[in-house]
Amino acid sequence: MPETPVPSTATSGPLRILITGSAGFVGSHLVERFLNEGHTVIGVDNYISGQVSNTDLFSDHPRFTFIEADVSHGIPYTGEKLDWVMHFASPASPPHYQQFPVETLMVGAQGTQNGLELAHAHGAGFFLASTSEVYGDPLVHPQPETYWGNVNPIGVRSCYDEAKRYAEAITMAYHRSRGVNTRIIRIFNTYGPRMRPDDGRVITNFVHQALRGEPLTVYGNGSQTRSFQYIDDLVEGISRLMMVEYHEPVNLGNPDEFTMLELIQVFKEILAKDLQIRFESLPLDDPKQRKPNIDTAKAWLKWDPEISLSEGIRKALVLG
Amino acid sequence: MPETPVPSTATSGPLRILITGSAGFVGSHLVERFLNEGHTVIGVDNYISGQVSNTDLFSDHPRFTFIEADVSHGIPYTGEKLDWVMHFASPASPPHYQQFPVETLMVGAQGTQNGLELAHAHGAGFFLASTSEVYGDPLVHPQPETYWGNVNPIGVRSCYDEAKRYAEAITMAYHRSRGVNTRIIRIFNTYGPRMRPDDGRVITNFVHQALRGEPLTVYGNGSQTRSFQYIDDLVEGISRLMMVEYHEPVNLGNPDEFTMLELIQVFKEILAKDLQIRFESLPLDDPKQRKPNIDTAKAWLKWDPEISLSEGIRKALVLG
Repeated sequence: MPETPVPSTATSGPLRILITGSAGFVGSHLVERFLNEGHTVIGVDNYISGQVSNTDLFSDHPRFTFIEADVSHGIPYTGEKLDWVMHFASPASPPHYQQFPVETLMVGAQGTQNGLELAHAHGAGFFLASTSEVYGDPLVHPQPETYWGNVNPIGVRSCYDEAKRYAEAITMAYHRSRGVNTRIIRIFNTYGPRMRPDDGRVITNFVHQALRGEPLTVYGNGSQTRSFQYIDDLVEGISRLMMVEYHEPVNLGNPDEFTMLELIQVFKEILAKDLQIRFESLPLDDPKQRKPNIDTAKAWLKWDPEISLSEGIRKALVLG
Repeated sequence: MPETPVPSTATSGPLRILITGSAGFVGSHLVERFLNEGHTVIGVDNYISGQVSNTDLFSDHPRFTFIEADVSHGIPYTGEKLDWVMHFASPASPPHYQQFPVETLMVGAQGTQNGLELAHAHGAGFFLASTSEVYGDPLVHPQPETYWGNVNPIGVRSCYDEAKRYAEAITMAYHRSRGVNTRIIRIFNTYGPRMRPDDGRVITNFVHQALRGEPLTVYGNGSQTRSFQYIDDLVEGISRLMMVEYHEPVNLGNPDEFTMLELIQVFKEILAKDLQIRFESLPLDDPKQRKPNIDTAKAWLKWDPEISLSEGIRKALVLG
């Protein structure tokens, strides 16, 4: 039952925001945005996949504090009243979560619950970073939020997919039965500065291969498509959702699709040089096509991705 | 990749078996079976939906001990080496798990993990009671174990469905990455003595209404079908799976389907009297048809349900 969008009272004046996974790719961009907007930010990370360099970026900022902790075992925050708890901690790329399957499951379950309890204790909002992986290998294209997904509960990816589905379920349970003011986003493929060079994703691989002058690796014949969202568009969507009382999941992603060969063409144009390609065989677990239906974000957040692939890749190449 | 069935070494001699949810419907029948077979049983329950009377049945037995504890917060067992940890604790009927959504989510996540850790520490086997609810509102009939299901991650039933999917995922993660000797069953609709009178399920309702001489309540026109497994068949399947090295989920259920009106006919024949029927409108969340494909259990366990509906209902009526 959609309600009319209303601005949240939580947006009046500077906020105190705790972000788990603050040293991760998305988390570090949220820290930057909120500090620039005048808010106070408490970052929490255990560096299982986050990077110390992402904490160092803000360590001298007077409104930033950092707590090194594994949020699956508790969030040791004892400071003043929080306005938001934003749960962005989790290994998120297949090489990372497959290296840490139990930790990935725990940060989705105990980590999410610890964040919900902290938000409940402070009367704060709780914001969950979920993922397009909850759709699994989708049988519906593009995916609206009402699609229930097609996930193998016992597959090698299930440590991430099922953890995030569980995280959504417990977030809704705290919203329904304990009145916590919750938000859920499902993040589609996102890229930008500060991604880990070893995250195994195609844009990361291409950026680092291009910067090193190596051939770009293409799996299969390069005709498979992907959709890519630039990090600034995601952060804008997150910021807007905080201001709207909408508690069901919202897809945030860029619906524009590109083949791998089109993506390489974009790199060639930006770098103004010919790039060599090394073709390799398609891995067995290569993710299938996913593409967001973003009607909910358009209607509720007046949000639409604004940064084109060539503009975003240009920034990623410059900013590393 | 099916392997050849081999008998487990764990079946030689009396075993020490810890059962969570020992005061529940299925748990109490497992306690009875294992005690009768000469094993030592440690029961654990917090009585959130289990019944004290199910513990009292065995409290004088020399090989039974009971620990009152919430396994989501730890399993306080400090005794001798365990051979099996069997995780059967969870609210399991819709009225119970919807009353305790957070507790249901926790016993699927933290409760399962505490059981896996205990099994790992003892070098014991870990046996997970999962459910046909992991198939959700299935689009495939009947359901084989390879069907990935159709579950709404944010629906009011998701506290149970997603908790059990998560429980399967973390069980496979401990099996794959930590070498725990695991088993997973997906239990379909099961009935028998010691079900809670208020569990809201149709056979329980009919048994208690018939015993009280009240009209039997039928929702809708009574043409919808259900499959019903008698508890002794389930317990036999569980016992056989413990002896076989098979780590993927196994459906245990009775594939025979009956309409509600056929079910009433069985009650009439057993009680040799006419029973009044009160028709009520179908609830909005009435579970859709589910029916197990039991080829895996037939092949690996040489198992097939043996107790007919009329025989089972006769026992349930006699034994209460």
